[in-house]
Amino acid sequence: MHFTSEQRLDDGVLEREFTLGEIPGTLWTPESGAPAPLVLMSHNNGLPKAEPRLVARARYTAAGGYAVATIDAAGCGDRPRSAADEQARADLRRAMRAGEPVDEIFESFIGPLVENAVPEWRTTLDALLTNPGIAGPVGYSGWMALGIRLAVAEPRIAAAGFFAGGYVPRAQRQEARQITVPLLLLLQWDDEGNPRQRALDLFDAFGSKEKTLHANPGGHTGTPWFELDDGNRFLDRHLK
Amino acid sequence: MHFTSEQRLDDGVLEREFTLGEIPGTLWTPESGAPAPLVLMSHNNGLPKAEPRLVARARYTAAGGYAVATIDAAGCGDRPRSAADEQARADLRRAMRAGEPVDEIFESFIGPLVENAVPEWRTTLDALLTNPGIAGPVGYSGWMALGIRLAVAEPRIAAAGFFAGGYVPRAQRQEARQITVPLLLLLQWDDEGNPRQRALDLFDAFGSKEKTLHANPGGHTGTPWFELDDGNRFLDRHLK
Repeated sequence: MHFTSEQRLDDGVLEREFTLGEIPGTLWTPESGAPAPLVLMSHNNGLPKAEPRLVARARYTAAGGYAVATIDAAGCGDRPRSAADEQARADLRRAMRAGEPVDEIFESFIGPLVENAVPEWRTTLDALLTNPGIAGPVGYSGWMALGIRLAVAEPRIAAAGFFAGGYVPRAQRQEARQITVPLLLLLQWDDEGNPRQRALDLFDAFGSKEKTLHANPGGHTGTPWFELDDGNRFLDRHLK
Repeated sequence: MHFTSEQRLDDGVLEREFTLGEIPGTLWTPESGAPAPLVLMSHNNGLPKAEPRLVARARYTAAGGYAVATIDAAGCGDRPRSAADEQARADLRRAMRAGEPVDEIFESFIGPLVENAVPEWRTTLDALLTNPGIAGPVGYSGWMALGIRLAVAEPRIAAAGFFAGGYVPRAQRQEARQITVPLLLLLQWDDEGNPRQRALDLFDAFGSKEKTLHANPGGHTGTPWFELDDGNRFLDRHLK
């Protein structure tokens, strides 16, 4: 893991860009520098790690006493995409404009995107845990499809917050019941692209004894600010 | 309003019983004694104000810096019941044992219970606001059917937390969309006596721009402890 840049932000958080082989990442750590629990944070459907809403969430979480890491995994963010992926995304845009069903198109590229991202997140986790500023336990926050796969595959994940606004491939819908760690599921009630009932069905399916659903009115990007605070308190209950 | 007993509890909260004409009530105020925002707290379906879960919630809320008041309104708690009410409750128990539909029975006595309780809660509110230890604004917490009616009828209610585990009469289901104050709806996902879909439909119907649903697994009495804390923070956002 090579740090390529370092910046002290006005909230005291230290923001560092890193590379790990081909994987580009960002690590935010709290002002104190003392070993902090780690939160892996990812944006729905492989959006770039530099996406402003992800960055704002990461900084808020880091200011709350966490080391927060994100990466652009294979095929995600600014990483190269396969011709098939480019084609699928073009098909998706065309189908959405035409009001046609999009599930099969989503399935064709989100499924492999999740499968291919998981090993890179695990490699990153291995490397992060050798950093003296980072202590276990490990939490997860964000992209639900990736989070389901990681929470099932990776025993070091101790708690997870999922955002319901993204496509969840069939494989992850099926393995949802295998999850047993505490969960917080955040749902935007009027998120047009993401049917509410699917999120409620997933909430029902999760195997965790402690799972909480927070739903708020409004569209995909309308999550109220106080959910940031609730998200930190959820992590505090399980990681501190 | 006559205070009939007074007790300083080990969390510093002052607990006072009072009567207001025929209405018996309890008021909990924070240790500081400084004027505090008021929370009206009521238990589903007219259960007694001394019910231990209500008392625990009231004390926790008071310790968080609120004056918390509850009453046994007409027909509620230990107040005398009409012969018709006694009959309805006997019919309800019989129907539940027999696994028969209970909606019409609930409708027949919860509807009037709510209608008759509202004037007494408003009278109590008038009296409470003359107390030097109580300041506006006013919040509500608990029994959803009563809370819907109060939030529609009483402009002094500035925010309301509802617990979904109780029968909501048709009249209140219809007026739910008239509510505009911030809401927190607490739902036990596996509450057998209270169909989940009805609570989700009500959440959808509320007219409030800010409304949040918190759902947790488990039965009617299984609400996790951290929802007490979340409830206080919801009140803090709107009453402090």
